[in-house]
Amino acid sequence: MSDQAALDTPDITDLMRPGQLLARGVSRFLLSHDFVTVEELVPTGGLRVDVMALGPKGEIWIVECKSSRADYQSDKKWQGYLEWCDRFFWAVDADFPVELLPNDSGLIIADSYGGEIMRMPDETKLAAARRKVMIQKFARHAAIRQHAARDPGMKLSASSWT
Amino acid sequence: MSDQAALDTPDITDLMRPGQLLARGVSRFLLSHDFVTVEELVPTGGLRVDVMALGPKGEIWIVECKSSRADYQSDKKWQGYLEWCDRFFWAVDADFPVELLPNDSGLIIADSYGGEIMRMPDETKLAAARRKVMIQKFARHAAIRQHAARDPGMKLSASSWT
Repeated sequence: MSDQAALDTPDITDLMRPGQLLARGVSRFLLSHDFVTVEELVPTGGLRVDVMALGPKGEIWIVECKSSRADYQSDKKWQGYLEWCDRFFWAVDADFPVELLPNDSGLIIADSYGGEIMRMPDETKLAAARRKVMIQKFARHAAIRQHAARDPGMKLSASSWT
Repeated sequence: MSDQAALDTPDITDLMRPGQLLARGVSRFLLSHDFVTVEELVPTGGLRVDVMALGPKGEIWIVECKSSRADYQSDKKWQGYLEWCDRFFWAVDADFPVELLPNDSGLIIADSYGGEIMRMPDETKLAAARRKVMIQKFARHAAIRQHAARDPGMKLSASSWT
């Protein structure tokens, strides 16, 4: 969705799976709307979200990225994500058969470079206590990874990383 | 404070200023106590903290790193930091003349590889509303920088970066 493609070195995108490329585009898109993101956050044991976004007013959105019909149909866990966010979205590419998706979920059409909200889902606001916990989880997740990026020599214990 | 020195490539530490090396050690030390950190966060206009730490129970600590007597004596802003954290610490190296420091502040003796708390300051708990704001600022600060690290091609607007 931009001419940035020319700026990417082939090795980066070649190494990323289709779902990761969608997540990259979704994160760029959300940041342009002032929502910051992390990938692969674990809200609770057994769940791992593709993209979790934090909005300027503390909104929590979850975006699951599906690269194909099979990828979507094999996901048996997505309903478990609903209770951890104010709004839930699917992100798929322009070729995805969107009629498969539940029509009360949010829908983002994306590629590696950006995206667009095609359907804004209703908001189901998190309770204040859970929002507090989630924002703190988000903060720790982002900070630990950013720490590893700015100081590759830092040591991690298993408990800190989650 | 460890034999990790041998693992560091000389070019990284050569490029860092003494205060940045202290901040690196402080961040490693704090992570070993389950406090995650960011550097250079701006709690409010005109203030920029060396290290802000978020503890497992939502504690907010600020650590100012001083590499020399002159570095400490030129800091006219540090009292402004107190209202943005539960505890405030100085971090200095083992050669610093610690008698210069106010003795009700916290004190961490650090080097590039780690540190140790020499004096734990009293806690002045943030009000709940301010803690909420600070944790959200911390989350956004960390997430935007982690985003830039995982996707160097992402674009930043000036407002998102702060």
